[in-house]
Parts: sequence; C-alpha cells; structure tokens
Amino acid sequence: MKGTHFLLAFVLVVLSYSFAFAFDPSPLQDFCVAIKKPTDGIFVNGKFCMDPMRATANDFFFPGLNIPANTKNQLGSNVTLVSVDTLPGLNTLGISLARLDFAPYGGLVPPHYHPRATEILTLLKGKLYVGFVTSNPSRLISKVLNPGDVFVFPIGLIHFQFNIGETDAVAISGLSSQNPGVVLIANAVFGSNPPINPDVLTKGFQLEMNVINYLQKQFGSST
Amino acid sequence: MKGTHFLLAFVLVVLSYSFAFAFDPSPLQDFCVAIKKPTDGIFVNGKFCMDPMRATANDFFFPGLNIPANTKNQLGSNVTLVSVDTLPGLNTLGISLARLDFAPYGGLVPPHYHPRATEILTLLKGKLYVGFVTSNPSRLISKVLNPGDVFVFPIGLIHFQFNIGETDAVAISGLSSQNPGVVLIANAVFGSNPPINPDVLTKGFQLEMNVINYLQKQFGSST
Amino acid sequence: MKGTHFLLAFVLVVLSYSFAFAFDPSPLQDFCVAIKKPTDGIFVNGKFCMDPMRATANDFFFPGLNIPANTKNQLGSNVTLVSVDTLPGLNTLGISLARLDFAPYGGLVPPHYHPRATEILTLLKGKLYVGFVTSNPSRLISKVLNPGDVFVFPIGLIHFQFNIGETDAVAISGLSSQNPGVVLIANAVFGSNPPINPDVLTKGFQLEMNVINYLQKQFGSST
Amino acid sequence: MKGTHFLLAFVLVVLSYSFAFAFDPSPLQDFCVAIKKPTDGIFVNGKFCMDPMRATANDFFFPGLNIPANTKNQLGSNVTLVSVDTLPGLNTLGISLARLDFAPYGGLVPPHYHPRATEILTLLKGKLYVGFVTSNPSRLISKVLNPGDVFVFPIGLIHFQFNIGETDAVAISGLSSQNPGVVLIANAVFGSNPPINPDVLTKGFQLEMNVINYLQKQFGSST
Amino acid sequence: MKGTHFLLAFVLVVLSYSFAFAFDPSPLQDFCVAIKKPTDGIFVNGKFCMDPMRATANDFFFPGLNIPANTKNQLGSNVTLVSVDTLPGLNTLGISLARLDFAPYGGLVPPHYHPRATEILTLLKGKLYVGFVTSNPSRLISKVLNPGDVFVFPIGLIHFQFNIGETDAVAISGLSSQNPGVVLIANAVFGSNPPINPDVLTKGFQLEMNVINYLQKQFGSST
Amino acid sequence: MKGTHFLLAFVLVVLSYSFAFAFDPSPLQDFCVAIKKPTDGIFVNGKFCMDPMRATANDFFFPGLNIPANTKNQLGSNVTLVSVDTLPGLNTLGISLARLDFAPYGGLVPPHYHPRATEILTLLKGKLYVGFVTSNPSRLISKVLNPGDVFVFPIGLIHFQFNIGETDAVAISGLSSQNPGVVLIANAVFGSNPPINPDVLTKGFQLEMNVINYLQKQFGSST
Repeated sequence: MKGTHFLLAFVLVVLSYSFAFAFDPSPLQDFCVAIKKPTDGIFVNGKFCMDPMRATANDFFFPGLNIPANTKNQLGSNVTLVSVDTLPGLNTLGISLARLDFAPYGGLVPPHYHPRATEILTLLKGKLYVGFVTSNPSRLISKVLNPGDVFVFPIGLIHFQFNIGETDAVAISGLSSQNPGVVLIANAVFGSNPPINPDVLTKGFQLEMNVINYLQKQFGSST
Repeated sequence: MKGTHFLLAFVLVVLSYSFAFAFDPSPLQDFCVAIKKPTDGIFVNGKFCMDPMRATANDFFFPGLNIPANTKNQLGSNVTLVSVDTLPGLNTLGISLARLDFAPYGGLVPPHYHPRATEILTLLKGKLYVGFVTSNPSRLISKVLNPGDVFVFPIGLIHFQFNIGETDAVAISGLSSQNPGVVLIANAVFGSNPPINPDVLTKGFQLEMNVINYLQKQFGSST
Repeated sequence: MKGTHFLLAFVLVVLSYSFAFAFDPSPLQDFCVAIKKPTDGIFVNGKFCMDPMRATANDFFFPGLNIPANTKNQLGSNVTLVSVDTLPGLNTLGISLARLDFAPYGGLVPPHYHPRATEILTLLKGKLYVGFVTSNPSRLISKVLNPGDVFVFPIGLIHFQFNIGETDAVAISGLSSQNPGVVLIANAVFGSNPPINPDVLTKGFQLEMNVINYLQKQFGSST
Repeated sequence: MKGTHFLLAFVLVVLSYSFAFAFDPSPLQDFCVAIKKPTDGIFVNGKFCMDPMRATANDFFFPGLNIPANTKNQLGSNVTLVSVDTLPGLNTLGISLARLDFAPYGGLVPPHYHPRATEILTLLKGKLYVGFVTSNPSRLISKVLNPGDVFVFPIGLIHFQFNIGETDAVAISGLSSQNPGVVLIANAVFGSNPPINPDVLTKGFQLEMNVINYLQKQFGSST
Repeated sequence: MKGTHFLLAFVLVVLSYSFAFAFDPSPLQDFCVAIKKPTDGIFVNGKFCMDPMRATANDFFFPGLNIPANTKNQLGSNVTLVSVDTLPGLNTLGISLARLDFAPYGGLVPPHYHPRATEILTLLKGKLYVGFVTSNPSRLISKVLNPGDVFVFPIGLIHFQFNIGETDAVAISGLSSQNPGVVLIANAVFGSNPPINPDVLTKGFQLEMNVINYLQKQFGSST
Repeated sequence: MKGTHFLLAFVLVVLSYSFAFAFDPSPLQDFCVAIKKPTDGIFVNGKFCMDPMRATANDFFFPGLNIPANTKNQLGSNVTLVSVDTLPGLNTLGISLARLDFAPYGGLVPPHYHPRATEILTLLKGKLYVGFVTSNPSRLISKVLNPGDVFVFPIGLIHFQFNIGETDAVAISGLSSQNPGVVLIANAVFGSNPPINPDVLTKGFQLEMNVINYLQKQFGSST
C-alpha cells in the first residue's frame, strides 16, 4: 500500500503540472474552470479542470475589490491580483485583473515587467506618474494620470507606477494573460537566492562592491 | 495624374487592411501604435503602425473614463469601448477595456457575445444581475453582483448585464483582444440588412409571421 | 482501499480534462489519437492520447457518411458531426467534418454560430438558401446554392441553411477545429436552464411578456 | 512620372506580400476577403483585403465542384483545390477544400505532404486505398475506403490515395489552412530546378547513377 | 490490488501523453522542466513537468557537444539532437539544437524535412554543399558553405547537407521547436513498415517494379 | 508632384511597418524573404517580402561567424546577432542566432532578458559562469560551462554570461524568434532617455539619491 500511495502522490503532483504549459487564445471548449489539487502540493498556476456541468457562477466570481488594501509597507503600495490562482474560471481564457493601492505621496509599484501580459490601467482615484521603457534604444514613455485616465504598458517592457498625489490612489488594471507573471527588477537582480556572483553585478551595474553588498542585503540575496 | 491619384487612393485603402488579419499573443516588437490613414477611408480596426521613435505617451493614453455616459436610450445603458480604434497603442497587444453605464432599475446590456474576447467585469457601483449561457447544453450561469465584485464571461458565449439596483450602475470590463467585436443577438437576427427571409425566422424561432414582421421592424431589418 | 479508489477515480476524472484546453495549429508530434476514459465520466471533448505505436488506421477512420440521416423532426434537418468525439484521430489536428441533411422544401438548420470554427460547405444535392450576418453593422450576406456550389461561413458569425428545393438536400461541411462548438440562438436565449430572467428578454427583444413566456416554453427554459 | 510609376509598381508588388506571413486561427475581424492586385504581378497566396462593406456573397462562393475533372493524364488523377487563391473569402479563416477525381483502376495521387494542413477526406464514389507514414519510426497506416468513409491525414506526414476500384472515384477533402501547400515527393526530389547534385541522390537513395539520371529526366530536373 | 495496479499503470501511461499536444510560443509560466515517467513506458516527446522549486541548473544543461560523433556508417554522417528528449528544460520553450558530423568527402545528411521546425545552421569546420527545395514549383536553392557561414532551411521543406570537403565537417544547427521531428524521404517512402503497396510506388516514381523491390529491401520495408 | 511624392513616401514608410506585428509559428507560405525599403526610413525589424521566384541562396545565407569580434569595450564582450535584420530569409520563420565573444577573465554579457525568445547556448571555447533568475520567487539557476556544454535561458527571464576562464570565450546561441529583442537591465532602468524620475529609483532600489545620480550618469540618462 505504501508504494501505491507513493505512486498516487506522484501522480497527483504530476497532474498538477499537466496543463501548466497549455495555452492558446482560442480555447478548445467554452471554458475550463481550474480546480484545487486534492493533496497539498505545489504549483504556480497549475490547476485541474472542473466538470463543466458542475461549474457554478461562483467559479467565475471574485468579491471584494472595493476594499482598500493595506499599503503600510516599505513601498507604500499593494497589488491585489485576480488571476487564475484566485479566480479559477479564468483558466484558459487569457485575461486577468488587478487592483492597485498606493499610499499618499510616494506609494510606488517599483520597476518591473510582466513576461506574459500587456497591462491596461484605469485610474479611479489619485494622481499617478507612470511610465515604461522601450527595449532598444531605452526610451522612457511616461505620463501623469488623473482619475478616469487609461494607460497601456506593453508586454515584456519595464514599467512603474508612482503616486504623486496627496491622497491615496486606486487603479484597476486588466492583464492579457490568466497568469501574467511579474519580475521585480531589484528583487530579481539583487535579491535572488542564491545571490548572483557580485563580480557580475559590480561590472554590470558599474557600482563598487560595497554598494552591491548593501543591495544584496537589502533585497535579501545574502545573509 | 488622375490615374496616379486613383492608384494611390487604391494603395492607401488597401494598406488600411494590410494588417487587419495579423494577430498574435506574441507581437514581434515592443509595440506597434496604430495610425490614422491619410485619406478618408474605411476600415473597422485597420490602422497603420507608427514609427516607434515618434510614439509618445499620448499614444498609450485615453482620458475620461470617470465621466458617466448618457443612458437615456431605449435600453438604459451605454458602453464606452476603449479598443484599438480609440487607443492606438493597443494595436497588436491583445487587450482592451470598456466602461459600462446603466440607468437605475432596468438599465440593460442585452444578450450579446464577443467573437474574439473573454470579458472580466468589475462592478464599481450599483447592483447587477449578470449571466452567460454555455453552448451545449444551454446552461445559464448567473449572479447578482455588488460593488467590488468581479465576474468572467468566457469568449464566444452569449451574456447580458442588467441593473436591478435603485441607483445607476457603473462597471469596468477588461476584454482579451484589442478588437473584441460584438454581436448583439436581436440586432443580428432581426435587424440585419437586408433582412433574413422571414420563413427562416418563423421556423427557427417558432413564432407567427406577424411577430417576426414586428421584430424586423423594431430592429430595423425591414422598412 | 476505499480511499485509494476514491483518489483514483478523482485522478481519472481530472485526467479527462487534462488536455481540454491544449490547442495549437502546430501540434508537437505527428498526431495524438484521443482515447476513451476508463471510468464513466464526463467531458465534452476531453479524450486522452493513445500510444502512437498502437494507433491503427481505424483511429483515423469514420464510416457511413453516405447514409441519409432522418430529418423527420420539427426543423426538418439533421447534422452528423464527425469531430474528435467520434473520430479520435482528429485530436490536436484542428479540423472536423459534418454531413447536413435537409427535408424537402423547408428543412432548416436555424440561426447559430460556431465559436471556434469557420465552416466551408459543399452542396451535393438540392437547393439551399444560406447566409450569415456580419457583426457591426449587421449585414446579411446570403446566396442560393445549387449542387457543386461551395460557401464559406466565417468563424463566430450567425448563419443558417434553408432548403428551398423540392427534394431533400445534402451537404458536406469542413470546420476549422476538431471541436467547433455550436450555439443555437433560439435555444441559448429562450431555452437555457435555468431560464434567463424574462425581464431581460422582454427588454432585450422588445417583446411582450406573454410572447417571451411562450418562447421559453417552446425552447424548454420553463416548465 | 516614370519614377512615380516605378515606385508605384514597387509599392504594389510589395503590397502583394504584405499579408503573406500574417496568420492566426483567431482572426482580428469578422473576415478579410482577399482581392486581386491591380497590376499584373506576382505572388502565391498574396491578396489584399477588401472593404468589408463591399464584400458580397460571391466573395464567399465557388461553383462547379459537381463537375468531374479530367483524369486523362499520366497519374490518372486530378485535384481541384478551393483555397484562398480561388475563393478569396477564405482569407485568414484557416480552412480550404479540394475535390479529388481518380480514373478507374489505378488513378493515383502520389506520395506527398501538406506542410501547413491536416486533410480530412470523404469518399463519395469508388474504392480507394489510402495511407500515411509516421515520422519516426516509419509506420504505414493504410485503409481501403468505400463510399461514405472518412479518413484523416495528419499535417506534415507523407500520404497517398490510390483508386483500386473498377469505376472512377470521387472524394471531397477539407484542409486545415487557407493555403495548405503541397510537396510532391518525386517532383521535389527528382524534378527540382536546378537539379539536386546526383551524388546526393545516388547516396541518399542508394541507386545507381543511371537510375538517378533517368528519374531526373522523368521528373524534369535535367534536360 | 491487481485492479489498482492496472489502473495506476493506465493512469501513468495516460499521463505520459497528457501534455504531448500542448504547445504555444507563449508558455504560461517561466518554464516547465520535463521529467521521466516513473514506469517504463512509451511516448515520443511526452514528459511531465517538474516542480519548479526542485528544478536545478542540470535540468537546463547538456554536455559533450564538443566531442566528434562516429560517422562510420553508410551515409557517413551523424546527427546529435539536443531536444526535449535529452534536455528536459527545453520543454514548452520552442527551440532545440543539433550537432552535425560529416565524414570527409561524401558524408551526407540525405533529403529530409522537419514538419515542426525551421533549421538555422552554422558551419564550424569543413565544406558543405547544402540546399532546400521550394514547394511549388520545385526550385532548388543551394549553396556551398565554408566555416563561419550560416544557412537557413525553412520549416517543412525538403533539404540536405553534403560534405564536399577533404576533411570531416562539423556544424551546429538551431531548430525552432523543442521536438522538431524528422521525415527522411527515402526511409518514409521505401522503408515504411508495413511497406506501401509497390503499385503506388512504381506509378508514383515511374520506376520498374524490380527497382521498387530493390529500394524497399534497401530501406527495410520488405523482408 | 510634391504631394504625390509626399504620399508615396508616406505609403512606403507605412509599408515598412505593415508586417511588423504579423507573426505565427505556422507561416502561411514556404518562406517570405524580407527586403529593404526603397526610401530611407525607419523601423526596427520592418522589412517587406520578396517575390519568392527571385529569392536566391544568398537570401538565406550569412557569412563570417568564424571571425572573432572585438571585445575591447567596457564589458569585454561582443554579441553578433544574426536575426531578420541581417539575414532576411529568417523573416516569419521564428528563429535567429548569435555569436558571443568574451574577453579573457571578466568578459561579461550583463543581466538582460529577451522579451520574445528562449536562448539555447553552446560553448565552443573558454569557461563561462552563466545563470538566470526565476520570476517568483527569485531563484538563481546558475552553472559553470566548459566547451561543448549547452545551456538554456527561458524566454523573458533575466540572465547573464560571465567569462571566468583565462582565455577568451566563444559561444553560439540559438534564439526562438527572428526578432528576439533585448532589454539590458542597467541601461533600461538607469539609462533611459529621458531619465526615470530619480525618486522612483531611490525608493525602488533603496539607494541614496547620489548613487542614483551616478548611475544615471554612467548609463547615460542624465547629462
């Protein structure tokens, strides 16, 4: 029986990945609601598909985006992502959503990019300085946004949002993938685990070793 | 010179289509801002691509979604679509946005579908009864939404939004295409130009000829 | 053992979905024959993939399209679909087929659309009035077909086929998906289960409540 | 004016390619009817896109598939392809059609493959021996077909159809691309222009030089 | 227990296919390392996906391409393919690699095509005569390559590489799929198992029956 | 005539973009060789498509990758990219190539990512320390490579290559796009033009303003 359980656990783990790399803008059926795996497990966006006859409205529903999120953290910002992880009906449908909250003057979603999604942001409240950088050459395209303004951040380009207003700010963003992914530049470069060899970073960023050491401490790469 | 102008006009018209059927979730460059064609012309979502070095923040920007739209019409609703037609930077990026306004009790976005997009709706204000119908069998999946609620309408399925609250209602929707398209059922079936042969409709909808005639008048197929 | 069986059943059900949302016009191998799931189960087009070394000619074969189907029903028509459900070798290959039979004068395939396929029809026998409606504005593009005529119905657009000849009619259609899907307009709108709130339909179709009630009875939404 | 004309000609030629590499199973609009280029010109499947408001039913229509084609040629077969080249409304829609005619006993569509399409064949009349070869290892999957039988030839695999009946044979095939392409093995290998160096072919096919010379003459490589 | 084991075996076999037909140029996650199936089994390129937290550098690593392969065989060539089968981290990422070794004067990679990949070759050593044949008409596009030369063989077209230098030759090729596939013309046509009916081949290649018999013996179709 | 020329120039410029956003792993024809635009112009990877009957072997050819590139620059490295810009036959085929040269001990290709391509690298000479960082959490996956070693950098993830050997190093990389794109982290964040507001960078990177100023000077954002 041990062996059986082991194999089963293996199977279930494996299953949790089985659709992970399946994607297309033209899904093969009406929808495919993701379901939780029965055993405690792993993955990023790996969910199974629910029997469509059992799917209910709740599988396509997510409440609470009207509630301000806590922005009392170092960056003064909070991103509530509604992707396939929290709204299983999004599975295979190629879109997701986020609510962005910013603390008054200075709340920041720092430079980052989404490897799998374009972002279209609508500002509901406050005043944001936003921008993205093109790949070659590095042109900054930036704008100050007021309520009702919409701005687009193309897929794969580094961008940021910065609250320059005196009140908190709130925005809603659509993202063109059910699992857009995010790479926070500072965390990826200076906070990886294990750390990137500091020689690479001193040369690549033209900084002294002690600044690199400081950055790797700040972002958690070294201990 | 006449011939030259004719050919040029022809070329420009042709050009306005030349990218229309080009689409992929992985665009081949950072972005491709759509530009207006120089001659008066035609097309649905056909725009040219702007020199990326000339692209500015305004090409990725659309203002005014904070302003309530006029819902004093027969359906008591209004959809402000921010797609590649009005926000040229969305070109090739596979996403768009809409603001939905509903008059108090009874504002309706009637049964329709988007042939090229899933819709993810966030209710900002009011109380909506929303739903979609699966393809086979025809199951209705519906829900009453309150502010902060998110709901998903899968690509290609018939759905509707109905204000059952006592105030006006406002929602923001993300759509998974820069040109999602919309087919309003009643308008397509009973309002086409020229009209569908009424024999097809009486048999297909099991209605008397005089009801079909009435419907075709209401929706504008016949005169 | 109970637990084991339960888990196994779970696994198998889950498996039956595991490929459902996997699709691409460039499959990753020569072919992937769908196989039946071992336990009685569920899904629409969810089939497993067969060991390619065991695949035989019968997996790519479907007989009997020469036999006229029974059209003695309310619409006077019959559609025999040869998709991945009945021809497992079609799995992942992005194409399917249908034979359409129509009763003499009046046989009708009523207004419907395929969310995932364009249809290309060849008329073998009889005389058909066919058409489709564009999305915006609603233009009807229609034609009377005679034997040997080919007609195209673009993906996602509402279309119909109506026998206006004195004999039965027969057509063969190719469809650009192994699981094209079909939404029959009248059935989806007036025959959903549970029914759409009649207030939505009276307003959306500008019909009296008693007509909506009648339609919902005819198409099976209410009891 | 000369320069202008030259440039215009250049533009038009260029235009005729401008969509050639644009393809997706999810087109960005309802349809895009291909149109002829105004100047006599070039390309394979390069057509422009017609103003959708001018598109008529004839753009989605192709007549005459009921007429037997002439099979009095060396192979005793004839393929009438209805692709975007002859039915412009197929443009961007990912499907095409062919009628296959075979002379009594021995009519042959010789070993070939379609680099961009799966083929699904329905036999209307006669008796065909058909088959395809998998890529690795080389397994032959073959079948004798009778009227009403359907058979699938997966994309990119070598296949053939051979009339083993005493009458002529007729089949209709759906193909999963508006421009499926065809590579006839013998013609490509032994009939290319200029010819492949015979040393490559003697070694690759383990045949004497005089047999290779004979084959290159038969298929037209050498003179 | 027997039943359980049988079901488990079934599940595992099934699993080994579950992702086989999933492919897209935009994977849904950072990566998906393929893992070996636990039971001895089947498939071509069917691998499972590894827990990303357990993935290590070795999963993205393949050593030994500096070592010359043995070319002492009938064709005087050897292809070392580094695809998802041997480098599991390539799974879902749409690229692979090959080292090609050729014996001095006459080493040949015979006419073949890749149904799922374009090949871009860099010659490191030696002198190659290479070419491919377009589909319609059959044009040969060929070139003699020297060290440092790069050449492209488009997806789905028949091509070959032939060493015309006095030393051995070495090349590195990139291929645009993690499972490019290969159809060797002579082996597929004359070496299939079971053999293609010789009547098809005599007519299709315009060769005498005894030559076809000889070829089928050489390439292993008949015994 | 002025007007005509202006319009023509406009047309040609427009044309140079017309295919830029068209991409698919399944091109619609054998190949589409890119051609230079006749007027001086603009774009990144915008080329037209050549008449296939005029395409020659040189359109699929690029020489000189055997020649070491100059690495006497600040980073001690050089990347020779063979993409659609320099090898026009790659157009629409979804693959490209690069030769990487590194100066002895310390030659560095600094942290960067390709928004549209996975990279598969083969080390020909020298000793490289290479790695990439996963998106969430930020795990470093790194390896020391010796000649003949192959390593994979998944699409969209930050990676680097660093020569830790005593000789120069040479590598060949395949990339899964004809226009892979590159975002050099330090250049995009600290070298954009115009510069990103330093407040965003001090907060986002937790660095003093004077360090940010220094970095923006080093990478060219400010003057």
